[in-house]
Amino acid sequence: MISDQVRQHLDFLTKPRGSLGRLEDLLIRYAEIRGLEPPATPRVAAFICCADHGVTAEGVSAWPSEITRLMVQNFVAGGAAISVLCRNFGIDPRIIDMGVQGAPVPGAENCRVAEGTKNFVVEPAMTLGQARQALDIGRRLARDAAESGYDMLLAGEMGIGNTTPATALLCAYTGAEPLAVTGPGAGLSADRISAKADVVRRALALHSSRVPMEVAANLGGFEILAIAGLILGSAELRLPLMLDGFITCSAALVVQALEPSALDCVIYSHRSAEPGHRAMLDQLGARPILDLEMRLGEGSAAALAVSIFQSACCLYHQMATLDQLTERKVG
Amino acid sequence: MISDQVRQHLDFLTKPRGSLGRLEDLLIRYAEIRGLEPPATPRVAAFICCADHGVTAEGVSAWPSEITRLMVQNFVAGGAAISVLCRNFGIDPRIIDMGVQGAPVPGAENCRVAEGTKNFVVEPAMTLGQARQALDIGRRLARDAAESGYDMLLAGEMGIGNTTPATALLCAYTGAEPLAVTGPGAGLSADRISAKADVVRRALALHSSRVPMEVAANLGGFEILAIAGLILGSAELRLPLMLDGFITCSAALVVQALEPSALDCVIYSHRSAEPGHRAMLDQLGARPILDLEMRLGEGSAAALAVSIFQSACCLYHQMATLDQLTERKVG
Repeated sequence: MISDQVRQHLDFLTKPRGSLGRLEDLLIRYAEIRGLEPPATPRVAAFICCADHGVTAEGVSAWPSEITRLMVQNFVAGGAAISVLCRNFGIDPRIIDMGVQGAPVPGAENCRVAEGTKNFVVEPAMTLGQARQALDIGRRLARDAAESGYDMLLAGEMGIGNTTPATALLCAYTGAEPLAVTGPGAGLSADRISAKADVVRRALALHSSRVPMEVAANLGGFEILAIAGLILGSAELRLPLMLDGFITCSAALVVQALEPSALDCVIYSHRSAEPGHRAMLDQLGARPILDLEMRLGEGSAAALAVSIFQSACCLYHQMATLDQLTERKVG
Repeated sequence: MISDQVRQHLDFLTKPRGSLGRLEDLLIRYAEIRGLEPPATPRVAAFICCADHGVTAEGVSAWPSEITRLMVQNFVAGGAAISVLCRNFGIDPRIIDMGVQGAPVPGAENCRVAEGTKNFVVEPAMTLGQARQALDIGRRLARDAAESGYDMLLAGEMGIGNTTPATALLCAYTGAEPLAVTGPGAGLSADRISAKADVVRRALALHSSRVPMEVAANLGGFEILAIAGLILGSAELRLPLMLDGFITCSAALVVQALEPSALDCVIYSHRSAEPGHRAMLDQLGARPILDLEMRLGEGSAAALAVSIFQSACCLYHQMATLDQLTERKVG
């Protein structure tokens, strides 16, 4: 087994056994997923999937939908947090327009399913056909990346209002009580959080199906389903995929309902400050690498976790071995 | 206040307020300590303070004292974990021989107080004069670094057996029960941990003084006191100092007993897997940045936390502002 080989090499480096803690776990996980030793310089592609959400009509976000487009333009221009981190860590960003309101965003990859989802408190967010289309796009993106020789993928997202579909998916798949898991997202005031929980409750009442793909279509978002597709594709290709926070984990819930073994390719980067994330991580059996109280999305926390993995790879390839230590003594 | 200015700038970047979580806290802490805005590319010096310990005669470590010298040679040759991380993050390592057994280690800076401490279950680990000398060396190292233009310091250490003095200091300064806070260090087997706790208990019985400097001299180590001196010096110079794990935090306990306000310059990097570290962090009121189950020392976890700070600085200086976002809309 390649993972045993990785463990053996780690035990032969100049350090007490296991003393690099989670960094060693990460290297072993990489080997288990990929079937290869950790690379000296991992090539990582970040897929930042972006879309708008009809449910913003209910006042569930502190920000207007127009901000989605502005932030996608910011990704293209290289000024967003994820842009800075990608540059800093040598990660290649791919900005995926899954359905931003208005015309296609110049500079983003046009994978648009529609100009945002419908308002899911009055009708399904999307058709089953659209849900399958978004999943297939994610699968194709993973395949592209594998063919281009990437060692690891990163999933991030942008979509004003998207903590609401993520919360609705959490409740639909796990039976969680909306008020217990609804949070401020990108800055909703405390008094509006209970109204947001009420929106989730109305959506759950309207869409009673618990068939996994129907739940995803009724309550999901195009970027969320693209990320679910990225997970499915990564699993098929044995590519490790670093997830970000609350939204990307809601995509993992979709996958858990559809094809749970596909989650074997997933690495969880971060415990988000969004309160429902704890319930999600419990449901996924996930133990994230970082807990930095971030709640930005975009893939920003995942990028920091990738940098921890990159450091682990440097240690794996550059540290002296116990042999070299004692040779030096003799020499 | 410069820290208010930093907060204002953070709130003007293209992200929800506070959404970078601990990264924002770190930037504000930097400004509070240093009285300056976070630099675009922080210059960081890592002081890896190394010494031997007479108490190893009691069989408290899984490794023989000779390993200290071999590891210092490994630092000099660039093969240790801290060497790899320093290279990777652009941190300048300084390897300080505070008292390794045998001749001075070639390539390390000769700051030796003696060839290791005495066995503190039979006599004081060092004289009061030696303790003051080690503190002064740390202070001088901080001053050197400030004069060389460093923005931040990092404290790491190496010394076979040094979790035993660190545990003894914890017990002496806080009244903790030895068995409750004694751990495996660099890999002691479970059955030998209670014997190690007993060594700590005997030392506490022999050295009954609770005068802070006498406790430090009776139970400390040269590298631990050098790090305490680094903290005192950093505080005088308003240089932020990133501490590593269990051993470097025992130096913070010495400082807390001598001059508690000096801890204002300290940033805590990591919650170590060593069980007594939790009690130490509680005593110091510390909330570390990372929790990666590492227990290597050397400054390895502190280096990873420095890389998180470096990323925060990149975000601070490279992210677009809200102005730029909306200008782009108009333009």
